[in-house]
Amino acid sequence: MYAGLAPDFGRYVIEYPFGDIYARPGLDLRTRLLTAVAALAAVGDSEVPLGNHIRYALNVGCTRDEIVETIMQTSVYAGFPRAVKGLAVAEKVLAERSGGQ
Amino acid sequence: MYAGLAPDFGRYVIEYPFGDIYARPGLDLRTRLLTAVAALAAVGDSEVPLGNHIRYALNVGCTRDEIVETIMQTSVYAGFPRAVKGLAVAEKVLAERSGGQ
Amino acid sequence: MYAGLAPDFGRYVIEYPFGDIYARPGLDLRTRLLTAVAALAAVGDSEVPLGNHIRYALNVGCTRDEIVETIMQTSVYAGFPRAVKGLAVAEKVLAERSGGQ
Amino acid sequence: MYAGLAPDFGRYVIEYPFGDIYARPGLDLRTRLLTAVAALAAVGDSEVPLGNHIRYALNVGCTRDEIVETIMQTSVYAGFPRAVKGLAVAEKVLAERSGGQ
Amino acid sequence: MYAGLAPDFGRYVIEYPFGDIYARPGLDLRTRLLTAVAALAAVGDSEVPLGNHIRYALNVGCTRDEIVETIMQTSVYAGFPRAVKGLAVAEKVLAERSGGQ
Amino acid sequence: MYAGLAPDFGRYVIEYPFGDIYARPGLDLRTRLLTAVAALAAVGDSEVPLGNHIRYALNVGCTRDEIVETIMQTSVYAGFPRAVKGLAVAEKVLAERSGGQ
Repeated sequence: MYAGLAPDFGRYVIEYPFGDIYARPGLDLRTRLLTAVAALAAVGDSEVPLGNHIRYALNVGCTRDEIVETIMQTSVYAGFPRAVKGLAVAEKVLAERSGGQ
Repeated sequence: MYAGLAPDFGRYVIEYPFGDIYARPGLDLRTRLLTAVAALAAVGDSEVPLGNHIRYALNVGCTRDEIVETIMQTSVYAGFPRAVKGLAVAEKVLAERSGGQ
Repeated sequence: MYAGLAPDFGRYVIEYPFGDIYARPGLDLRTRLLTAVAALAAVGDSEVPLGNHIRYALNVGCTRDEIVETIMQTSVYAGFPRAVKGLAVAEKVLAERSGGQ
Repeated sequence: MYAGLAPDFGRYVIEYPFGDIYARPGLDLRTRLLTAVAALAAVGDSEVPLGNHIRYALNVGCTRDEIVETIMQTSVYAGFPRAVKGLAVAEKVLAERSGGQ
Repeated sequence: MYAGLAPDFGRYVIEYPFGDIYARPGLDLRTRLLTAVAALAAVGDSEVPLGNHIRYALNVGCTRDEIVETIMQTSVYAGFPRAVKGLAVAEKVLAERSGGQ
Repeated sequence: MYAGLAPDFGRYVIEYPFGDIYARPGLDLRTRLLTAVAALAAVGDSEVPLGNHIRYALNVGCTRDEIVETIMQTSVYAGFPRAVKGLAVAEKVLAERSGGQ
């Protein structure tokens, strides 16, 4: 997306989150990704980033159950509508993965 | 708080979150609490619940670093102001705990 | 949706909101549904739940005017964009109903 | 507040919400105020306006139960932390009123 | 949209924002529109109003760079997902305009 | 704050926002700060960062009127309660400055 419109943003979106934050010790990568999924589902209006982070979480070995549980729990902290919305995103991403087998 | 005003709410706030959600398998308790901290910091306007969940997280063995990293990461997903606010809550709770030694 | 992905969530989404909260005395069902519509429109990112609650509100006898007034009022408390978004959801749901006559 | 800083805003905050919206037929005043309380509790970061609207709701005859039920219900649509926060505001306002007897 | 459903709302959405607020001195129109774009991108769930305000901003002479910079900056104050979402809206609107040449 | 708890965060909060974003051409510094004030007021739960950015805005030559107008406008995009909250922050910061004369 950013190629024409905002080429530097394509770099920022990598550099600070992944270069600085994700490279830090103190939180293992699986837990980082589950807490990221939790934050994105709670914020609620971020289907594309939430879908991407579910994919990253699967890639580093988070289980399907861990991801679903993390998003269901959003119902407590940010209300049922955001949990419903997050589960809809998870359903699509998890279907892609199963479909690929 | 709820004793006089809304006595049943005191039960609901335990029953659904802790009776139903926290009792589920699929996510270990330490990860549940870190993802809860992530969701609360992202939602942002929840100092009391965030403080309580940081205490619960410490009680089940999450490290101070894991909690701080989880909240710092909020800067990526919900902006710097919410990370700053969450870290201020963490600072108070962690100071209570250190002060008790 | 939840059948495969999160079967228990399909139960939670009924049990706490409808089993516990909606069954309570103290607020008549029409007012419960209008206040639910108000909350969903204010939260803003919940088209599917907002649409469903508009349907429930119509089913228990709320008028089309009451629903539209409730959503218009969101402009005061959560800004014009959320009122606009909520009215777009209402327009679809009300058109379905009229179309059925 | 607005006297020195933003004198016209003091007029706007009355004119559009109360002059235009609250004067409309289609929703009785008690229901308007309960839906306003619902929207303010859902938005969550509005202690002063929420407190004021609870006072207005009491003034037009809403019961203490109706107000408490409306705010408890926020737990479903915007999560438990916002319901907790709203109930804390209600508790203060309702205590003022009882104290005055 | 409002013609059938909520005809007065079509007037309110003009009167208060444009009749009252935009007519005020103290902030030139270009800056008003850039700050409106900033607020809409930060609120995040308002694709239609954000798109419209980007068009208005272009109409009063804001540059493409000013608009893109304003939205990129949302990453700092409301997180990367909202900046990403805002840039996607900007991309569509700016493409329409370029396509018209 | 971050000295003991999260020393690197003190660096991040400067580096990305000010090192990367604020250093960019395409938006003059006065407009950058007014759009930052707009975003912070719209996000709503960020008294400390909003206060700081009002101070920075004054430091680079934004007028008191420009700041007040920017925050008043939040009423349109994020509702009256956030405008009220933002004006309360502005009032404190502007009083400090006047008091210093």
